[in-house]
Amino acid sequence: MDSLPDLAAVEAMDEADPLRIFRSRFALPAGVIYLDGNSLGAASHEVFAEVRQAAMEEWGNGLIRSWNSAGWFHLPLELGDRIGRLIGAAEDQTVVTDSTSVNIYKTLHAALAMRPDRNVIVAEGDSFPTDLYMAEGVVSTRPGVTLRLEGRDADTIEELIGENVAVVLVNHVNYKSGELRDMAALTRRIQAAGALVIWDLCHSAGALPVDLDGAGADFAVGCTYKYLNGGPGAPAFIYAAKRHHASISQPLSGWWSHARPFAFEQSFDGDAGIQRFLCGTQPILSLRALKGALSIWDEVDMNALRRKSIALTDLFIRLVEAKCGLELETTRDSEKRGSQVSFIHSNAYEVMQALIERGVIGDFRAPSTLRFGFTPLYVSYRDVWRAATVLEEILSSGSWKEARFAVRSAVT
Amino acid sequence: MDSLPDLAAVEAMDEADPLRIFRSRFALPAGVIYLDGNSLGAASHEVFAEVRQAAMEEWGNGLIRSWNSAGWFHLPLELGDRIGRLIGAAEDQTVVTDSTSVNIYKTLHAALAMRPDRNVIVAEGDSFPTDLYMAEGVVSTRPGVTLRLEGRDADTIEELIGENVAVVLVNHVNYKSGELRDMAALTRRIQAAGALVIWDLCHSAGALPVDLDGAGADFAVGCTYKYLNGGPGAPAFIYAAKRHHASISQPLSGWWSHARPFAFEQSFDGDAGIQRFLCGTQPILSLRALKGALSIWDEVDMNALRRKSIALTDLFIRLVEAKCGLELETTRDSEKRGSQVSFIHSNAYEVMQALIERGVIGDFRAPSTLRFGFTPLYVSYRDVWRAATVLEEILSSGSWKEARFAVRSAVT
Repeated sequence: MDSLPDLAAVEAMDEADPLRIFRSRFALPAGVIYLDGNSLGAASHEVFAEVRQAAMEEWGNGLIRSWNSAGWFHLPLELGDRIGRLIGAAEDQTVVTDSTSVNIYKTLHAALAMRPDRNVIVAEGDSFPTDLYMAEGVVSTRPGVTLRLEGRDADTIEELIGENVAVVLVNHVNYKSGELRDMAALTRRIQAAGALVIWDLCHSAGALPVDLDGAGADFAVGCTYKYLNGGPGAPAFIYAAKRHHASISQPLSGWWSHARPFAFEQSFDGDAGIQRFLCGTQPILSLRALKGALSIWDEVDMNALRRKSIALTDLFIRLVEAKCGLELETTRDSEKRGSQVSFIHSNAYEVMQALIERGVIGDFRAPSTLRFGFTPLYVSYRDVWRAATVLEEILSSGSWKEARFAVRSAVT
Repeated sequence: MDSLPDLAAVEAMDEADPLRIFRSRFALPAGVIYLDGNSLGAASHEVFAEVRQAAMEEWGNGLIRSWNSAGWFHLPLELGDRIGRLIGAAEDQTVVTDSTSVNIYKTLHAALAMRPDRNVIVAEGDSFPTDLYMAEGVVSTRPGVTLRLEGRDADTIEELIGENVAVVLVNHVNYKSGELRDMAALTRRIQAAGALVIWDLCHSAGALPVDLDGAGADFAVGCTYKYLNGGPGAPAFIYAAKRHHASISQPLSGWWSHARPFAFEQSFDGDAGIQRFLCGTQPILSLRALKGALSIWDEVDMNALRRKSIALTDLFIRLVEAKCGLELETTRDSEKRGSQVSFIHSNAYEVMQALIERGVIGDFRAPSTLRFGFTPLYVSYRDVWRAATVLEEILSSGSWKEARFAVRSAVT
């Protein structure tokens, strides 16, 4: 193993970083090392300009006319296709709309309707909970359908995939541990058993290359406010493989999912394409913030992003293990993790508070996880070195015992 | 009947208008008379300031910390209570979240679950269609439940209210004709038959005083981007009477509707209050625009608003009937209409295009409705006089026959 890099070596890594040009596009506050972009991505100057344009010019001056003249109606499809490039989805298969939770509900219903002779939903017991809560909500409306969980009803998803399974809802990257699933292999395994798969990409979209079409995935959902930097609570996305479009039904059949929304017909007749997954009118200012954020993503090489992500997380693991001796929760195998690193500490909450007070913003996850996200567009190698150094100082001095309990971050 | 007022008389009405102070709060473009605030309300300077603060300060500088420090998590309840004052809802009964369509789905499911021995949903055939599409979506998940429509299955809602009816979904003000229902009387009639009522307030919230608590209503939904001026596609609201909170279940059971969302529990346990109607993470920038808009509403006397609304619509009806001789679609009885006026013209689309080209922005509704909304906070009596004059000029000259077909407005 190489010797531990010193600050000069780390700064040389920044010098050689082809993605370092993106950092100036973001409006990061001075004195902050932001390792929580996997919870809420940073704001960019492009976003501010889009929001100002949408609010003051299009709404303020254009008023109702902007639904057409400013293309507001087309934002769900337009932004969906731009995200599609980042997740391996050819066009007309992705829309931006509603929340991840609502979109899980839609896709679970759609999948169950496509497998009427099956009655089991499989998910992961350690999923971010809203996935499980939405699955419970679907089960409550479908008598006979049950939910089985990895970690509760069997050790692995593979063991749960039997002939009664209609659909598997699975995270590409686990929100807490950062574990990365093999999308292509698991998709094959699920489909070989006659089931459908819904990939939750909340912690992988914008974090690493995703190839939904290449993996032959059926459905996917994900949020846009983490790595994609769309802004707090920005609308989520849905992907559905084109081969399924003719079969899609889902009960949130609002007017934006109608084949002819402006004919104002009395009865519902669903759109024949991906717009069948829309529902009601969407929040335009939040969509326009996302549009600004995606204008940066249009320029990003996802393979270069992944290389830097692995280099950042590898460096952080090496430095923290050498300097702090904490237990690593994330896998050491870079091929099997997303763009985040978690360490265990019995007083993780207090330690994270002390870090935040020192300007190093990561996240706490109950009961004992220190979670750090590495967003290659605006995190530098020097940030990593500095974060590890501050963590070492806090742990060796015991200063975390005096940390004020001011901030409890609460978004995944 | 009084003689038709001349311009001087109309200007005197503006002089005496106690609400004229609000107009300067809005960022209306020069040369435009905006009679489409019942489709998309106008932007205010307060909104721009809120959005700038939320984007640049709270997101840009506060980053993840702002979920707590800027109160983002509390916006659904905080804004709900502020809307509550305008719709006669005591606190803790209203939340702002998701779209009107999604909220109709939640409330219909909740009502059906409270009447398990009944299986009919009643709605209006001439409702804005998304209400009917969502009811169809609910029916698709509940075997045995049927949807019956006023105007298709019977002449009136009252005739449809039988012993099998679980819930009636009804508009307070009809989106096209402007007809205003008697909320208290119809609520009593529905409840006397053992059913529950969901009021759709899209075209009455912010248009006139609403008294949900006083009427003993069960549930209500509505949008915030029309009279409330929250911005394009701003999140919608749900009201549920407190007496029902312990009984509420609805299948969109996302993590924001959990009793302990940040405990990250594996199983769902719903909040015991109005937050049971939340679902997933909400679009904060759009919520903050709404917050700016509501800061104006906090100052408005709803009874003064209603008086001006009736005076504006009465004046428009008198002027248009005298000058243009068009057929009135809206009722002449001001007690039975909302804050809008519709006239019939066989070439309504072309006439509305000609009006818009002259700077008078109203709305067209198929097949032959010219719809004009009167928002007392920023529409003056002189605007009404000028709009009627331009309409007279367009009709008498026949200039609408040359109107360009540039803009087809498409939001209710």
